[in-house]
Amino acid sequence: MATIKDIANKLGIAVSTVSKGLNGASDISNDMRQLVLDTAVEMGYATKKMRTTTTRKVCIFIENMDYENIDQFGYDIIVGFKLSAARRHWEVTVIPSSLTLQTDEKYDTYMLKNGYSGAFFLGFTLHDDWVVQLNKTTVPTVLLDNYIERNNHVGYVGTDSEEGIDLAVDHLKELGHKKIAFLNGSKNSMVSDQRYTAFVNSMNKHNLIPEENLIEYGYYVPDCAKYHVPSFLKNGATAIICASDLIASGVITEVTEQGLKVPEDISVIGFDDLPIATQLSPALTTIRQDRVDLGKSAFLLLDGLIHHITTSKLLLRAKFMKRQSTAICKERTREEN
Amino acid sequence: MATIKDIANKLGIAVSTVSKGLNGASDISNDMRQLVLDTAVEMGYATKKMRTTTTRKVCIFIENMDYENIDQFGYDIIVGFKLSAARRHWEVTVIPSSLTLQTDEKYDTYMLKNGYSGAFFLGFTLHDDWVVQLNKTTVPTVLLDNYIERNNHVGYVGTDSEEGIDLAVDHLKELGHKKIAFLNGSKNSMVSDQRYTAFVNSMNKHNLIPEENLIEYGYYVPDCAKYHVPSFLKNGATAIICASDLIASGVITEVTEQGLKVPEDISVIGFDDLPIATQLSPALTTIRQDRVDLGKSAFLLLDGLIHHITTSKLLLRAKFMKRQSTAICKERTREEN
Repeated sequence: MATIKDIANKLGIAVSTVSKGLNGASDISNDMRQLVLDTAVEMGYATKKMRTTTTRKVCIFIENMDYENIDQFGYDIIVGFKLSAARRHWEVTVIPSSLTLQTDEKYDTYMLKNGYSGAFFLGFTLHDDWVVQLNKTTVPTVLLDNYIERNNHVGYVGTDSEEGIDLAVDHLKELGHKKIAFLNGSKNSMVSDQRYTAFVNSMNKHNLIPEENLIEYGYYVPDCAKYHVPSFLKNGATAIICASDLIASGVITEVTEQGLKVPEDISVIGFDDLPIATQLSPALTTIRQDRVDLGKSAFLLLDGLIHHITTSKLLLRAKFMKRQSTAICKERTREEN
Repeated sequence: MATIKDIANKLGIAVSTVSKGLNGASDISNDMRQLVLDTAVEMGYATKKMRTTTTRKVCIFIENMDYENIDQFGYDIIVGFKLSAARRHWEVTVIPSSLTLQTDEKYDTYMLKNGYSGAFFLGFTLHDDWVVQLNKTTVPTVLLDNYIERNNHVGYVGTDSEEGIDLAVDHLKELGHKKIAFLNGSKNSMVSDQRYTAFVNSMNKHNLIPEENLIEYGYYVPDCAKYHVPSFLKNGATAIICASDLIASGVITEVTEQGLKVPEDISVIGFDDLPIATQLSPALTTIRQDRVDLGKSAFLLLDGLIHHITTSKLLLRAKFMKRQSTAICKERTREEN
């Protein structure tokens, strides 16, 4: 791994100048400091410094995800992460990703400059500049719900969608439902892909037919329901599994607008178990992601990566939460009478 | 959760007798002690006691796996587990599974009786009595390379076979190989299934054909090579990926017996990176499972389960180790000349 001397040699400057650049001394120019930092990152010096630093600092970058209110998805994840970090005496900074953050600076340079030993990415997409850079980073980094291939410094934490969707199908089949629809989140998301595959596999496993006209991609917002619920109903769906509680809340609204009742006419299942799930009417049957545990696990994984344990994936159990938005299928009741 | 009083009420005996039974006092009969323990386990008292115990003891059960010598697969896994456990002040006992261990006593009862808070299972199969009991256990338990559905108390740790096999195919494709054979481990093993799927997916991804007569299941021993290598060669294979280094060692022997050379005529890749990999002639190109990290991760997962973090799966990166058993495909050399 590169030393300060290697960096000095490469740039043809004095070791003391490199040291000033790395340590943020004020008597060198900003341009020189930037050059030193970029070269240090390029030569793999970054990791070494981060791993031997005495202040133990990590950060959470967050975008496309609400987290400031206890009702919101990111809130508990951050709580869990901070709890685990505090137990090991790590300092955590939460940094909302701004428009300029990712364009102003390379990820590794930013981390080195600010003395962070590692980061947890929440809500980023695979197209983000910094996520693209993760293919080559040497900074220990954990992503929620996104996976980077073949880089030992990056890990992925999430909830087991396969088991989660399977629990939902299992429950609906027991209630006599056969025409089960699936309203997924947005396309081009790893989690949406996982849930799509999980739905098709689970339907087949239960000897039910995953019908193409009962499977749609939407977005992770309630509003998407109105574009898909009408055709689900027209195509005979008696139950709708949703890729999030927010989508499910939109589905309940839309089913009601169409003059039908949840759960008497249509059963609805969510995913996440946000606080909103118990506040909906009827209270939402859903698949729980334990967000505090997601945060705790993310820190454990990051701590492992910092100590060179190359975990690539850590999945938490999904938990089935039975509430009032699912009921015995009407067709079954009719058949039995 | 059940209290001592609940157990006493259920059995119609005094609380003091229950207490004696749970704490191993000598003035009650063995039969009564067994009855008290079995009832305690049935009523879910076990977990509570284990989780509040002052001696922090966990154990590793091991069968079908060599571990006593540094060259053997289990050795480093146990080292890693003990290292992580020691850092958190947990005592670890290694218990080889005997013929009678699993039949003499239920798993949960054994754990309660011996004051273990959790266990790591190494080398067990899904048919083992105790593994079957894991569907319902309330004892925090981690399995290497085996997965139990829908029980929040059980987790699975392993190496990412998908990425591992993909690295092997990638390497061979770069060397110009097209007719790549895959000699898998035994059928009815979760890991063999994963590696089979990984091989087929990776071949397709690389625009190569996974040919049925170039894919076979063997056993995780060198000897299985002689049953499959001759037909691989007859069917035109120029490279053979093996599901373990031991299988690969058998393949090298068999290729040589057939009058061909590794890697000049046939490239061979192993899986595991056991110490034997560097001692073979030629030294074996292989996919490394970091066994110390597997052990460390297993303890971290177990520690999480004991503290109610319901991780279900933890996967480590597979690492590609280039050595001398792979070379440019002869056909390619010929085509280019």
